Amino acid sequence: MQTVKIDLAERSYMVSIGSGLLDDVNAVFDIPGASTVLVISNETVAPLYLDRLTASLVGVNVQSLVLPDGESYKTSEYWSQIIDKLIEIRSTRDTTLITLGGGVVGDLGGFAAASYMRGINFIQIPTSLLAQVDASVGGKTGFNHPRGKNLIGAFHQPVAVMVDIDTLETLPAREFSAGLAEVVKIAAVRDEEFLTWLENNSPAIMAREPEALTGMISRSIANKAEVVAEDEREAGVRALLNFGHSFGHALETLTHYRSYLHGEAVAIGMMIASRLSELRGLCEAGFNERLGKLLQSFNLPLELPGNIDPDDIIDTMKLDKKVIAGLTRLILVKSVGHGIIDSTSDIPQIAAAIKASQPET
Amino acid sequence: MQTVKIDLAERSYMVSIGSGLLDDVNAVFDIPGASTVLVISNETVAPLYLDRLTASLVGVNVQSLVLPDGESYKTSEYWSQIIDKLIEIRSTRDTTLITLGGGVVGDLGGFAAASYMRGINFIQIPTSLLAQVDASVGGKTGFNHPRGKNLIGAFHQPVAVMVDIDTLETLPAREFSAGLAEVVKIAAVRDEEFLTWLENNSPAIMAREPEALTGMISRSIANKAEVVAEDEREAGVRALLNFGHSFGHALETLTHYRSYLHGEAVAIGMMIASRLSELRGLCEAGFNERLGKLLQSFNLPLELPGNIDPDDIIDTMKLDKKVIAGLTRLILVKSVGHGIIDSTSDIPQIAAAIKASQPET
Repeated sequence: MQTVKIDLAERSYMVSIGSGLLDDVNAVFDIPGASTVLVISNETVAPLYLDRLTASLVGVNVQSLVLPDGESYKTSEYWSQIIDKLIEIRSTRDTTLITLGGGVVGDLGGFAAASYMRGINFIQIPTSLLAQVDASVGGKTGFNHPRGKNLIGAFHQPVAVMVDIDTLETLPAREFSAGLAEVVKIAAVRDEEFLTWLENNSPAIMAREPEALTGMISRSIANKAEVVAEDEREAGVRALLNFGHSFGHALETLTHYRSYLHGEAVAIGMMIASRLSELRGLCEAGFNERLGKLLQSFNLPLELPGNIDPDDIIDTMKLDKKVIAGLTRLILVKSVGHGIIDSTSDIPQIAAAIKASQPET
Repeated sequence: MQTVKIDLAERSYMVSIGSGLLDDVNAVFDIPGASTVLVISNETVAPLYLDRLTASLVGVNVQSLVLPDGESYKTSEYWSQIIDKLIEIRSTRDTTLITLGGGVVGDLGGFAAASYMRGINFIQIPTSLLAQVDASVGGKTGFNHPRGKNLIGAFHQPVAVMVDIDTLETLPAREFSAGLAEVVKIAAVRDEEFLTWLENNSPAIMAREPEALTGMISRSIANKAEVVAEDEREAGVRALLNFGHSFGHALETLTHYRSYLHGEAVAIGMMIASRLSELRGLCEAGFNERLGKLLQSFNLPLELPGNIDPDDIIDTMKLDKKVIAGLTRLILVKSVGHGIIDSTSDIPQIAAAIKASQPET
């Protein structure tokens, strides 16, 4: 088992990463005896892991609530269901909420924990690779509003995060690859040595070898932890974590969130952003190609489809309020492993980078 | 104008107290030019003060939302209305939310500010005495659930609080007195000198003389600020602020929140708690009488009605989860101005103190 400390003064906590942790949670975190725990999970994950978790939570009163699985359920309605369940089981401020599942369960459960009685403890047990490397660090919680993603929420840090890599055994290949996109992202903007390690260990990672997974997840989390410790509430340097995301988000919007998983769109977005970094002369030639090879080895898409008009990507970025900032504040790469926040790209340069990321006709 | 600093590390802010502040808000706090401000008010306060506030917010885009007035509107529905309004006016993280009104508007607006895009700035302009001395310090925000008061919410500190004592001119006498109960409370548990000052200035306070009000509110806030700075998330010493509240809350519950304003119930609760402190030999004889004289000069009720069975008060305290802690952890007074958290009173002693607070038959 490896551990990474998330250093946030009195809100600090540990992330524990390893194999078989679900069967021995008492070795990972303490829950006061005789207290009540509410486990929030979803219909896909609960049948696989809920009983194991419950069995290893010895001496506490374990309750559970199983939600439907999917981003479309990250709504006010399901947040209210969790609150109602907390009330039904007579939760007090001493109750601990545990989320067992991917990002949706973590975000919804985290915000219920943030807002019930002005905040109760919660522990995250992320079971998808994306949630393990991304959602598990940073304290972002909340739900979607019909008018926008993640419009309602809070920064609420968990008291502990436990990553049992065994849960990745049951993760579909496409979702596993999508999670790897966020791993590549963090290496690309701040850790060249890690990028090289990923290149060397790509086959072991794709074979989901436990040692490779534990090392990769720990290092991803350690990198993200450093960024979050510097900028807990996303006022500055945390923007680096958006590398590839402005372009990726526009692609997701234009394809109505139906064609790409988030990580897949981010992979294509990183290809555009790295190409723009080269075109602008900010980073050495070849970075885009190097990134492409790694993403390809992880079975991630590289090209923007030919039927998407680059102007539509730019217009979408302009229209979206969150991405207006993205147009003027794009994350580019100065050298491998060194992301920067850049406001000096002009529209023709951005358009050229987008066009160059489409298949030649 | 007097100012009190609320010292909470990076969440510190100033409370400004004075006369005429609504007409010159720029002298009190800074809102970046050209930014958007959403003012949340209610149907009682808005006609009196909203135009003055809007007129003095020069150079910013001011929007407003007026809610119905009353505790029964502190619900999920009206919180959602504020969120929808924030979305409708295309608020970003740079938008500032201002609450202009009593505790309901402050709690609802504060929680909307806490949860919109994981937190935007908000400024409180409390217009009732209760909100000025109590709700304006501490960062408690939220709304009621059909199953309990304040079940949903967050600790979210404002960036500034402005108390214009002129707004007290239009406050009904009964509400003004109810606010004074919280002032007496804080003096009773931690500031004997202030208690004496209140006794000496009672006529000026009841005449709502500006100088007396400014001094009284500033000192109340300074006292509460010290407690909150020590215990922001209510884990320990902040419980002292519940002096009189466990008994008062039981009385409110038994009378279905119809017979007493919160401050009135707290006044009666303080009489019971001070009598218990004397009966237990914890504080000098005469404290209960001294407190009673002061509360009476503020037109507050002192006696528990004869038709209420003391056992019902105790049973209600036992049943209410928040107040179970209240039974075992009552706030008593060791000497005038020195509250303590006490767990050593037994039921017969508590019952005796309650009975002694009823009219003789």
